[in-house]
Amino acid sequence: MASKNYYDVTEWHVGNPYEDIGEVINSIIADIKSRQTTPDVNGGGKPGAAIFIPSGDYHLRTQVRIDISYLKIMGTGHGFTSSSIRFNTPKEELADWHEIWPGGSRILVDLEPEVSDRSASEAEQAAGAAFYVERSGAPRISSVEFSNFCIDGLHFMDDGSGNDDPENTYVNGKTGIYIASAQDSFRITEMGLIYLEHGITSYHADAMTIHDNFIAECGNCIELRGSGQASKITDNLMGAGYKGYSIFAQNFGGLLVATNNVFPRGSSSVHFDGVVRSSITGNRFHSFYPGMLIFSGSCSENLVASNHFLRDHEPWPPMLKYDNGLDDTYGLLSISGCNNSIIANHISETIAAKYLKPAGVKPVIIRVVAGSGNYISNNHIVATTEDEKEQRANVSDSAEETTEKKDACFSAQVDALLTADRLVPLEVIELMS
Amino acid sequence: MASKNYYDVTEWHVGNPYEDIGEVINSIIADIKSRQTTPDVNGGGKPGAAIFIPSGDYHLRTQVRIDISYLKIMGTGHGFTSSSIRFNTPKEELADWHEIWPGGSRILVDLEPEVSDRSASEAEQAAGAAFYVERSGAPRISSVEFSNFCIDGLHFMDDGSGNDDPENTYVNGKTGIYIASAQDSFRITEMGLIYLEHGITSYHADAMTIHDNFIAECGNCIELRGSGQASKITDNLMGAGYKGYSIFAQNFGGLLVATNNVFPRGSSSVHFDGVVRSSITGNRFHSFYPGMLIFSGSCSENLVASNHFLRDHEPWPPMLKYDNGLDDTYGLLSISGCNNSIIANHISETIAAKYLKPAGVKPVIIRVVAGSGNYISNNHIVATTEDEKEQRANVSDSAEETTEKKDACFSAQVDALLTADRLVPLEVIELMS
Amino acid sequence: MASKNYYDVTEWHVGNPYEDIGEVINSIIADIKSRQTTPDVNGGGKPGAAIFIPSGDYHLRTQVRIDISYLKIMGTGHGFTSSSIRFNTPKEELADWHEIWPGGSRILVDLEPEVSDRSASEAEQAAGAAFYVERSGAPRISSVEFSNFCIDGLHFMDDGSGNDDPENTYVNGKTGIYIASAQDSFRITEMGLIYLEHGITSYHADAMTIHDNFIAECGNCIELRGSGQASKITDNLMGAGYKGYSIFAQNFGGLLVATNNVFPRGSSSVHFDGVVRSSITGNRFHSFYPGMLIFSGSCSENLVASNHFLRDHEPWPPMLKYDNGLDDTYGLLSISGCNNSIIANHISETIAAKYLKPAGVKPVIIRVVAGSGNYISNNHIVATTEDEKEQRANVSDSAEETTEKKDACFSAQVDALLTADRLVPLEVIELMS
Repeated sequence: MASKNYYDVTEWHVGNPYEDIGEVINSIIADIKSRQTTPDVNGGGKPGAAIFIPSGDYHLRTQVRIDISYLKIMGTGHGFTSSSIRFNTPKEELADWHEIWPGGSRILVDLEPEVSDRSASEAEQAAGAAFYVERSGAPRISSVEFSNFCIDGLHFMDDGSGNDDPENTYVNGKTGIYIASAQDSFRITEMGLIYLEHGITSYHADAMTIHDNFIAECGNCIELRGSGQASKITDNLMGAGYKGYSIFAQNFGGLLVATNNVFPRGSSSVHFDGVVRSSITGNRFHSFYPGMLIFSGSCSENLVASNHFLRDHEPWPPMLKYDNGLDDTYGLLSISGCNNSIIANHISETIAAKYLKPAGVKPVIIRVVAGSGNYISNNHIVATTEDEKEQRANVSDSAEETTEKKDACFSAQVDALLTADRLVPLEVIELMS
Repeated sequence: MASKNYYDVTEWHVGNPYEDIGEVINSIIADIKSRQTTPDVNGGGKPGAAIFIPSGDYHLRTQVRIDISYLKIMGTGHGFTSSSIRFNTPKEELADWHEIWPGGSRILVDLEPEVSDRSASEAEQAAGAAFYVERSGAPRISSVEFSNFCIDGLHFMDDGSGNDDPENTYVNGKTGIYIASAQDSFRITEMGLIYLEHGITSYHADAMTIHDNFIAECGNCIELRGSGQASKITDNLMGAGYKGYSIFAQNFGGLLVATNNVFPRGSSSVHFDGVVRSSITGNRFHSFYPGMLIFSGSCSENLVASNHFLRDHEPWPPMLKYDNGLDDTYGLLSISGCNNSIIANHISETIAAKYLKPAGVKPVIIRVVAGSGNYISNNHIVATTEDEKEQRANVSDSAEETTEKKDACFSAQVDALLTADRLVPLEVIELMS
Repeated sequence: MASKNYYDVTEWHVGNPYEDIGEVINSIIADIKSRQTTPDVNGGGKPGAAIFIPSGDYHLRTQVRIDISYLKIMGTGHGFTSSSIRFNTPKEELADWHEIWPGGSRILVDLEPEVSDRSASEAEQAAGAAFYVERSGAPRISSVEFSNFCIDGLHFMDDGSGNDDPENTYVNGKTGIYIASAQDSFRITEMGLIYLEHGITSYHADAMTIHDNFIAECGNCIELRGSGQASKITDNLMGAGYKGYSIFAQNFGGLLVATNNVFPRGSSSVHFDGVVRSSITGNRFHSFYPGMLIFSGSCSENLVASNHFLRDHEPWPPMLKYDNGLDDTYGLLSISGCNNSIIANHISETIAAKYLKPAGVKPVIIRVVAGSGNYISNNHIVATTEDEKEQRANVSDSAEETTEKKDACFSAQVDALLTADRLVPLEVIELMS
């Protein structure tokens, strides 16, 4: 009578999970399907199963293909560690390192996807996915859950752009989880995703939960494409590469992006394209480039509230030669659309004047590119130069000295004007429309 | 020496979990109690046990009765899929469907509760509960945990109101989890609750966690009744039926309702009755009716901040005939009480004039029914007609054309005045007191 | 082929987990290490392992010492119940109690740490830790996870201050989890920590997740010391003792403190010392003392938004004789630093005039001790006397009567002036700098 719906990849009779966990999981899925019966109007369902991945290193040489609902794949460790630091550490020092790879319940993505032109095309991303989900017909595939394991893309590659270190390109054609067809009520939680060109890509998501994951050192972290509704991206640690998105959503309604801690160095922390009536609240965002929040297409009636935005300068020497290509006039927050609300955010920009692009430019903090009815109120913008910062560091915190710096505080939305040696109060927001 | 405190329902020697998981779990609880010893002042406790429900379909014909602390019941799948869509799909199409029922670790609630008068009475709700928790004496029952399984009420029923489709009534007398006595530090996480007249009902909750669940297509989702304190309802996907509450709390202090994504079609997204010093922050709410947020009784010193409220019109033909019975003058947010704060929210209402009730009425967005000292500040209300919306859809996003629509933006709290063909700036908030 | 990387403490061949789980876990860690191989540049790692603690009572007489990455220690129950209530209940009543101790997967910390001078010194705290994490060399230890078990310090002790009840001192020299060296991507989730002088102490945290725990009746709950960055403390239930911090962070950047429900009676709900560019958003805080939020040192560019702060008077007789020693002029929120943002919070203070310290003082709600550029806007401060509250309770909620109380609402940041019999409108915020 004991349930057959709990599988351990290390105890399955087909394949060797250490050599190719993809073959093993696909075999398990086939077994689940072979045991499922026709739906029964009296209540009999196809309840699915759980696949357990104990801590360990598992090479994946065959793409996992999921086309059943109610499948849970779960491990005992997100296993994140910084591969970026490791790859930028001189090889001779690594000999003394305790470990050099991520761990936990770790999938080593050994697919060898094509990358045709400096980054993977749509079809290449799908082909390069460790976990590929697709099902046609009705109903939409539902309630697949991924929990607490690691998907490690292992290496980035030469992207043909002349970068001298291929491990810093954020390109390898690999995707962690790719959901190709419309889906309902998926859950992705407590995962670790690393060194993938695309972490999670989902088309036509409904009621998706992406919660409490660690998705970093990926070209892009989370992409909700096609269209979608009523989903949440909450409480994640994230940080994409300099070409990519930490969070991207397209033609979405009712998305809740909340309580995430988003590190650099994503080209954008959040990019909404044609997104309506969604929320970005209570997040902490940190970026090295302009355009850290972008609303493109027609983004309307979205709320951006209670977030902390920080832009400063890339401090890590190996990465200083890269950026996202945008000028400082682009807008740290670039808004295109109508009737959005940007309320009660703190925005800090601190950068030495010498790094501004183009030279001498007045950096724009909030740029309303197009649209009307945008309500921008009660935000606090703190713009400081790094020279100013260094100067401050030499100053005591005594009241007498600090009271002279009142101009560091702006009670309304403003552009940031930076000069070389001190902070200057800024003008009101520049509306481009 | 191996622990006896881990039970698998499919490996227990009493009963058949597929036929009646209630009998099996009650037998396991009796076993746990039979092994517990008298509390020991030197540290010996009654640590409880875990009951594991593997993925699978489990009929429940006997109510589970919990009266011990530190019991964890856990599965491997919340198993949500939309039963509402399925029941409103023509039967002939279902033959081709992959599956027609929820899944995961799924409890099929086969209780046959009484429903005396169109909805279950208090006693009927308790009798119709799949999981019933009650313990008298001291201390309060503590730390019961429910995690990652599905409670499926299967069907709604004819409620005697003349509805032609009983599956759309949101009535069946069934409750998912009913906690009858005062309790401390319970956890309900990663669950899927569906097609229950009442999802979770808890009396006298203290330090309760209801986190990261999927509770939808239920008559009511979460009800905290009696009184309670210091609890959190966070990061859930939810949506009640047109008669019920997504979240209801009564005589509570220190409740945190945060980061939830609440879908239609609940009569109210949140209804506080006599709740004080509690927070509703960072949520995304969507409703089809007035009264999406209600403060009744004496609700004081609560904070409603950084939420996104959207009300539009029910788009789904089978449900168009139902609503919650409130007029558009009721207030989308209806506030009774003193010293509450409503700050930094975005509120969108979009509805064609022909749907307003009564005809020609000026819909009220925020209505302060009674009380003083309510601080309503820095909210952005966007009121549009659907005709307006259609018109907008035909307009390009170019700056020249959109700048003429500035009246779509309100920088202060206002009522919504809608006319048939275009948006009109609205008057200041109507205080009824 | 079955994985060896999953350990059950009750099935391990060395030691007896019920007598000393520390010895058992240390033996398991030694086994994990003995099986690890040298890192392999072709992808072979040291993936770690999981250690499972079933529900049960486990004495810990040997400190667990962790020096490997990717270790997950997990149980089946956080097991919190109030020991404070129990220890303040007359012994004769306890005979009838169902249970008197916490439960779940429960570690009974039977270490006997030194406490030299009324509270544990740094070294004593480390020595008194149930779980001690330290590793030298590179890289930083990563991805250790603690999940869903209970660490119970059992008793507080006489602290030499003349307290008549040692169980109310919040001192015992015991720490739940002590992380001594720099670490990356740790996770602490779904835990229960109780009756420890220090719950979690972490030095030099990076990308740490402390999420959805229950940490209460501890001298201090969470302390992030030394320095750190890019971490999150989210969705926890917490409450420290009257001498300690619920949350303390030092020299941190990019910390996100969000969606927590923090009970009394911590000396501070949150104390930031030298913290920059961090967020405190969407929390519910409750305290019995001034100084519930303290920014000391040079705290700059932090965001405090959408929080609910409540201070009222300790209602529990056995604890009435204790407080945190601060006067009511200290500031309920005490801010030292530049360019911080305090936006869209609700702050309630309700206290009878007779409890004010020193007598007759005008309590300060927000005190800017030093610094400039702090943006304090759109907060709602509700200051009431308890006499006023009682008076209100006798008043109906009818509009006529409540409209006269408009002075209970303040639209700007203010100090709180309380008189004995009624509320008086308050003056503008007192800037001390």
